[in-house]
Amino acid sequence: MHRYRSHTCGALRASDVGATARLSGWCHRIRDHGGVLFIDLRDHYGLTQVVIDPDSPAFKLAETVRSEWVIRVDGRVRSRPAGTENPELPTGQVEVYAAEIEVLGAAAELPLPVFGDVEYPEETRLRYRFLDLRREKLHKNIMTRGAIIDAMRAKMKAQGFFEFQTPILTASSPEGARDFLVPSRLHPGKFYALPQAPQQYKQLIMMSGFDRYFQIAPCFRDEDPRADRLPGEFYQLDLEMSFVEQDDVFAAVEPVITGVFEQFADGKPVTKNWPRIPYAVSMQKYGTDKPDLRNPIEMQDVSEHFRGSGFKVFARLLEAEQNRVWAIPGPTGGSRAFCDRMNSWAQGEGQPGLGYIMWREGGEGAGPIANNIGPERTAAIRDQLGLKEGDAAFFVAGDPSKFVKFAGAARTKVGEELDLVDHDRFELAWIVDFPFYEWSEDEKKIDFSHNPFSMPQGGLDALNGQDPLTIKAFQYDIACNGYEIASGGIRNHRPEAMVKAFEIAGYDEQTVIERFGGLYRAFQYGAPPHGGMAAGVDRIVMLLCGTTNLREISIFPMNQQAQDILMGAPNEATPKQLRELHIRTNVQDK
Amino acid sequence: MHRYRSHTCGALRASDVGATARLSGWCHRIRDHGGVLFIDLRDHYGLTQVVIDPDSPAFKLAETVRSEWVIRVDGRVRSRPAGTENPELPTGQVEVYAAEIEVLGAAAELPLPVFGDVEYPEETRLRYRFLDLRREKLHKNIMTRGAIIDAMRAKMKAQGFFEFQTPILTASSPEGARDFLVPSRLHPGKFYALPQAPQQYKQLIMMSGFDRYFQIAPCFRDEDPRADRLPGEFYQLDLEMSFVEQDDVFAAVEPVITGVFEQFADGKPVTKNWPRIPYAVSMQKYGTDKPDLRNPIEMQDVSEHFRGSGFKVFARLLEAEQNRVWAIPGPTGGSRAFCDRMNSWAQGEGQPGLGYIMWREGGEGAGPIANNIGPERTAAIRDQLGLKEGDAAFFVAGDPSKFVKFAGAARTKVGEELDLVDHDRFELAWIVDFPFYEWSEDEKKIDFSHNPFSMPQGGLDALNGQDPLTIKAFQYDIACNGYEIASGGIRNHRPEAMVKAFEIAGYDEQTVIERFGGLYRAFQYGAPPHGGMAAGVDRIVMLLCGTTNLREISIFPMNQQAQDILMGAPNEATPKQLRELHIRTNVQDK
Repeated sequence: MHRYRSHTCGALRASDVGATARLSGWCHRIRDHGGVLFIDLRDHYGLTQVVIDPDSPAFKLAETVRSEWVIRVDGRVRSRPAGTENPELPTGQVEVYAAEIEVLGAAAELPLPVFGDVEYPEETRLRYRFLDLRREKLHKNIMTRGAIIDAMRAKMKAQGFFEFQTPILTASSPEGARDFLVPSRLHPGKFYALPQAPQQYKQLIMMSGFDRYFQIAPCFRDEDPRADRLPGEFYQLDLEMSFVEQDDVFAAVEPVITGVFEQFADGKPVTKNWPRIPYAVSMQKYGTDKPDLRNPIEMQDVSEHFRGSGFKVFARLLEAEQNRVWAIPGPTGGSRAFCDRMNSWAQGEGQPGLGYIMWREGGEGAGPIANNIGPERTAAIRDQLGLKEGDAAFFVAGDPSKFVKFAGAARTKVGEELDLVDHDRFELAWIVDFPFYEWSEDEKKIDFSHNPFSMPQGGLDALNGQDPLTIKAFQYDIACNGYEIASGGIRNHRPEAMVKAFEIAGYDEQTVIERFGGLYRAFQYGAPPHGGMAAGVDRIVMLLCGTTNLREISIFPMNQQAQDILMGAPNEATPKQLRELHIRTNVQDK
Repeated sequence: MHRYRSHTCGALRASDVGATARLSGWCHRIRDHGGVLFIDLRDHYGLTQVVIDPDSPAFKLAETVRSEWVIRVDGRVRSRPAGTENPELPTGQVEVYAAEIEVLGAAAELPLPVFGDVEYPEETRLRYRFLDLRREKLHKNIMTRGAIIDAMRAKMKAQGFFEFQTPILTASSPEGARDFLVPSRLHPGKFYALPQAPQQYKQLIMMSGFDRYFQIAPCFRDEDPRADRLPGEFYQLDLEMSFVEQDDVFAAVEPVITGVFEQFADGKPVTKNWPRIPYAVSMQKYGTDKPDLRNPIEMQDVSEHFRGSGFKVFARLLEAEQNRVWAIPGPTGGSRAFCDRMNSWAQGEGQPGLGYIMWREGGEGAGPIANNIGPERTAAIRDQLGLKEGDAAFFVAGDPSKFVKFAGAARTKVGEELDLVDHDRFELAWIVDFPFYEWSEDEKKIDFSHNPFSMPQGGLDALNGQDPLTIKAFQYDIACNGYEIASGGIRNHRPEAMVKAFEIAGYDEQTVIERFGGLYRAFQYGAPPHGGMAAGVDRIVMLLCGTTNLREISIFPMNQQAQDILMGAPNEATPKQLRELHIRTNVQDK
């Protein structure tokens, strides 16, 4: 017989009754029923009930066993007494009557129980991650994560993509976030950088003629901790294709992501034939470029109804060219109590308030705004928004570029408060036509709004002839339930267009060569048109596991202070290490 | 029609004749046959011959096209004229008569041609890696690498292993090699380390109850460049299992590795039922713990024949207890010319020479040694070694621990020179029973000879009662054709045995806690017996691609000076970066 087990703890069935079995696992739960011991023995595959009574030679040892000890049990499989079967457990028809027990690994008193679902402080959970990971929910999340990654990989391969590993020790490339640096021992005073993403490498793979690349790629960004981001490292499903236009990328990616969501959505509906929403439309309707489309509310521009109206605050605002009034329809929200609650919420968000009109049952539109603009305009607004009695509308006014974020938050709030959001579905959409440039108020200059490697719509002609701030990029995101889960673009593969694009953003050719030398050089030697995208693995897993905390779907995450308190990182280096790396610490800079 | 292609360059067949096709790709080779242009258009999938004659509207543009330009071609598929078909090319029955050409990406003059197989300096190849990767052999190696990794993954999953991603920003853990360090911005004066291997994490995954782990894991070691090692990073197929003994690991791993080799060996035989060779036997027979078993030569101890013999040099040496004489049989090597050549080779290796006996056709054993020990002893040696007329034997004498490396090299040399090595096969073997400790001459103390996390054979009893230098470990390697391709062990999962094992090597419990705190802590809370191994992905790919240079099977390798000359790494950091990381460079230390 095998030294440790003839069966896993999830294997025994009624058909095994009478057989001798050897199991090994953790003592999940130990009960003493009138002198008879019941041990739920657990391993990765399941639970089996072990019974030891005082007649068993194993009894004396069994009495010493405690929670989470690892033991081996030899015994006979028998049916559970009638009425004590557990139909919820695959092994619930049987139990093992233990004849022999061996302690393989004892356990000290637990800082964190494995059995049960009690909340524990995150610090404890991370320090004893090996215990936390034995707990049912986290264990299952981590297995789901692996299964999702397997599914991504299988679906990418089915689409004709090949997997490559790009370097992790590479060059610093200021793409946006802060790099992690690695001092070089062999080249004093120089540093490698960990990749923020394999952006340049994947484009170089296209220059190298490989046609369809993907990778489950570790990425590294030294950013300040934030709730919805893991400190340090994260994974993306990174892909790139040659000889493609935007539609080809969509046709390749959409079935992969839809397929993964359907496979792990646990029966929840997943969008088919994703809508394609231009960035400008998304901002106007949802107040964000990552809309939660489970919320049916769409905002509308209702400026015309307020121009020259009796509601002077808005009328006066609208005299400035850039200003607008947007309406957030609130179906079923037409009560004073609700409208007041929204108004208070807005004040809590630092706004002066949230103007509204409510159409109470059987009545005209009401509220201060309705009173000021009169019944005709009030009715016209209701008509435009398609509202009926019992509904409300809320209004934000001013420069949309300034109020849009708040408008989006108000849309979310109204939708949630009115219970309009169907949480049990996954709504996916493409967001397209991102602006290529934006005005940087900080630097008082035009800068790239997203990815400098994207192809501007209209190509070199647009760069030469068009107001840069009106140029759109072949650049796109995937939004799901209010999260950006992927981002990509068709790349600018023409060196002269690349140089021009950077010139508009204030970087001369020399700077391009210094920062992106490898890619710039490659563009000179036969570059194919290409494009791709990168999807956030962690965020997708988080959505599919139904959690909002990334540490619930990562096996050994750092804490919010970017520390691994299980392994003790970061830690001091020895003087010898520092000397070899030609660096000194400079802690007084703190 | 698609913007860039209706078919790939590998798709068209005789059945497509008459159809209109659109292709995009690189101009692989351009020939002018009496005013008619032939362009071999290449993409990832294949080559298609494009024909443009002066009647074609595309002719004028086609004349400007040069090697490695990326073009789109529209044209009609037609049969190649009889007699010009190319049966070696899947598209060799057809050609495309071009009606229209579009230049998608021009190319400057090439520093490195893509067509042809001319050798180029490695520096050029790495700087223009995107060109080098378009070349047939390297392109194929990289695709084979990907296919091998896919196969490893599939076979591991078929064996019930699950894939996990362990952290890359982690704690420094002095396991042997030098760590790469990453300064922490948020924790001044502290550093993360890149993992030399996920050793501790994979053991923690077992503590967490996951049962069977694997990962295609990036590993990082800051070691000095060496021919058979990529600077910086490399990949290993890392695995770990719970509730197993050594045989279980072998049963899980052997079919995976055999399967991968068989799948990619291109018909070459691969060992089935690998031999298990104890470390001590391997050293004695082959002079190394990574024997090339394609070489049939096995060394033998022939000391007894020399004790008290007339060959005084050896007889005197054997008076010291630790000394031995080993014989390297040389079948078919029984000629003065060959024996003299081996003697000269040994002198070139810094040895005084290489003693021999040769048994010439029809004669007695001959040579100085045979003359000194006489015919009886000479015949006895020949009998022991199973040699016949026409063969030779070579001798090394002294302290085996000092001469073993040279003896192994001599065995290899004799085997190669006598053409005894069948290069067209893969010979795999387990090397088992490694010593747990060794005597460190440098530090004048007992130290771990391999992996401190291994379980000593005999467990705590052996640690308590046995001469440490005689303790063997449950530790094993896989050897293939003279390379170590994998290494592993059954782990020491008992905290008291771990503490004792480190104590013998001179580390107290406090040191163990400081260095391996996470693992040490986990051992206190119910640790299952477990073991595993790690196989070198790069080295396996290298063997299967039939190359001896790891840069031929890695997509973007660093050069021998640990520089990425394509991307320009390592590079200077900005003063702002250094300030944020709380470090200063200390270049005068150089």
